[in-house]
This record gives sequence, structure tokens and C-alpha cells, in this order.
Amino acid sequence: MTLEIPEVVINRLPVYARALADLAARGETVVSSQALGELLDVTPAQIRKDLSYFGRFGKQGRGYNVQGLLHRLREILGIDRQWRLCLVGVGRLGQAIAEYGGFGPQGFHIVAAFDANPAVVGKHVGGVEVQDIARLDEYLAHNRVDIGIVAVPAAEAQDVVDRLVRGGIRAILNYAPVTAHVPPGVSIRHIDPVLAMQSMTYYIKRSEPAGAK
Amino acid sequence: MTLEIPEVVINRLPVYARALADLAARGETVVSSQALGELLDVTPAQIRKDLSYFGRFGKQGRGYNVQGLLHRLREILGIDRQWRLCLVGVGRLGQAIAEYGGFGPQGFHIVAAFDANPAVVGKHVGGVEVQDIARLDEYLAHNRVDIGIVAVPAAEAQDVVDRLVRGGIRAILNYAPVTAHVPPGVSIRHIDPVLAMQSMTYYIKRSEPAGAK
Repeated sequence: MTLEIPEVVINRLPVYARALADLAARGETVVSSQALGELLDVTPAQIRKDLSYFGRFGKQGRGYNVQGLLHRLREILGIDRQWRLCLVGVGRLGQAIAEYGGFGPQGFHIVAAFDANPAVVGKHVGGVEVQDIARLDEYLAHNRVDIGIVAVPAAEAQDVVDRLVRGGIRAILNYAPVTAHVPPGVSIRHIDPVLAMQSMTYYIKRSEPAGAK
Repeated sequence: MTLEIPEVVINRLPVYARALADLAARGETVVSSQALGELLDVTPAQIRKDLSYFGRFGKQGRGYNVQGLLHRLREILGIDRQWRLCLVGVGRLGQAIAEYGGFGPQGFHIVAAFDANPAVVGKHVGGVEVQDIARLDEYLAHNRVDIGIVAVPAAEAQDVVDRLVRGGIRAILNYAPVTAHVPPGVSIRHIDPVLAMQSMTYYIKRSEPAGAK
């Protein structure tokens, strides 16, 4: 049995891996936890503690081997693989997601897309033909899909998530502006720029002189 | 002086506000921390503790007044205002952001857009004309902008963030796939679906039978 690693630690590992890939691309071979921390606005102690869950990396005072640590993180996270995504909801947001160029180079490939709107079904987005959402369950029964992307209106999101989970999907990226629920053993991440901005306006507002509008 | 409230608490408040708005729209007048927690996959104790930073809400055993708590959270977060955004980077991703319909109804308005590409400058996206990025500093000197949205390639993101900060912006929403740095007193949030998926593939990989590919 492996030690249960806190989710916040897992969430930081892709950030470390990305920084290490940048360092490797620039020809750096060794990096200290201090230098990596400065790149990422994280304390060196945090980095050392996070990595200690996965074994011993680097020698005291010598820093980390960039390629070695990157390789190990990619392996731990599964970044070294190709992952199959299905997109549900191909409105304006879903189309932008399907055509986003940043997924493919990282091994994430949209293999199917679904929508309820007859005006959209049959069109091609990001290299796949949009299928009627009525066919989602059947598709999942016969095809491997690793991650479901939900880009439907808020009111429909939970129903779509439930169908994806019933279809065997264990990882969901939710763009709908609503907290959707998944059972234990299924991961979900919410992408919501409005919530991110609302948490920053608190700080803007607080720093204003009293009485300002 | 106000107590320094942990950023993780501030980050949860918009989620509470959104759930309360949904409850209000459904005609609910009172909600317990238990029921709110179930809606959001958060423990009732967490909700009570988070809200305790801002005073006393609700009576023991009586639950929270939905409208009252929503009103107070909107006030704390500044959700009750109109905010002015500028978008830097109007490639495919930037265009999708500019045309995203979810910002306006929440009080977030893109008032200016900038790009370095002459083929894009002069075009209209989301109701504004794209300006040459060379004009960014001057624009910020003469116009109020609350939040900067960064949608440029990774290699250019830090430079754009620096210019926004020099122009007086204290809140940045960064879509570029890189950790950008801001000085104290400036907030930044990163929107990165690839990092979100990479933190989930860890769990998919771990749950597979040993030896599976």
C-alpha cells in the first residue's frame, strides 16, 4: 500500500514538472529547491516536503538533477502518456476548448464531442465530428475515454457528470459554472474564471481608501 | 486593522456566494451549514469557520438567512460592483475569452483588448476594438482598469504582467501556461486546464491494475 498523499501536493506536482521542463529546454542540468522555489513562488521547504512523499531526490547541498526529477514526475503523474478526452457541450465555450492548441502537445486528445443541439451535431470541431448527446452512453460503453470535459450550461452539468461517471470515466474537467458532485474514486476539477476574479476583487476592494466607490 | 484572512478562505467565498444565489433563485430563504456543505462538498464546520472571519451569521440551530448572507458576501467580495477588465493577447484563446458570455452578467466587462499581431489589431472582439500592444502603457495611464487578463504565449507572459503591474493593475487572471510573478499587493490567479488534468491523471494511473499500460 502506498501512503495517501494529500491532494494539494498532487496538484502542485504538474507545476513543478512544467518548470523543470522549461529548465531542461534552456539546458539547465541541476536546480536547487531554492531556485525552483523562486521560479514558482513556493518555499524551498515546501518543494522538499512535497517531493519527499515520492522518495529521495537530489543530494544534500547538490540540488536536483533536472532531467532525472522531470522524468520521475512525468512518470508519477502519467504525463508520459497519451490521454483520451471526450467533450460534452459544443457551444461557444466548448468550441473554444476543442480548438485550443495547448492540449495535444501535452498528450491530451479530444476523441469525441457531444451536444444536444441539432444545429451543432454533425459539425466538425477540433478534428472530431459532434455527435448527438443521446449517443454518449453507448459511445462510452464501447470506447476508452480517460477524461470527460463538461462545457454544458450549469443546469445540465450534474446530469452530464453523472452520465460520464456511469460510463466509467474517473476524471472530469468541469467548465460549467456550478459545483458538480462525483462519487469517491472519481476526480473533478473546476475551471471557473469568474470565481477566480471574484476572489481577487476582495483584495482590490480592501485596498481602496475608505469611502471610495 | 482587520484580521488577515487566509487566501484559501477568500477563495472559497465566491463558491458560497454562487450557491446562495442559486438557493435564492429557487426561493429558499434559510439554509443550514449542513445543507450548504452538501451542495458544495465542504464540511459544515469549514463553512462555519470560514464565515466566522466576517462576523456572526445565522443563529445556532436556525441556519443562515439566504438573502442576508448572500448580500453580505457580495459586499465583502465586491460582487455587487461593475469591474473593468483589459485583455492582452487576442489569439484564438483570447478571442474565446473576449466572446465568453459568462463575464458580463457577473459584472466583469472587457473594456479594452491589445495584441502585437498587426493582422488582429483593428478587429473587433467581444464589442471592443483590438489595439496595438504598444499602446498598452498609455492606455493604462489614462483609463481605469481593475483586472488584466493575460492570454499571450508563455514566453511573453511575464513581460505583459510586469507592464500591467506598472500600469497600476492589482489583479491579474493569467491564461498563459507559465507561473508569472507579481509583487506584494498584487493578486494573480492562473487558469490552466492542462495542469488540472495532469493532477487527475495521477489518480487514474494509480487506480489501474499493476502492469496495465
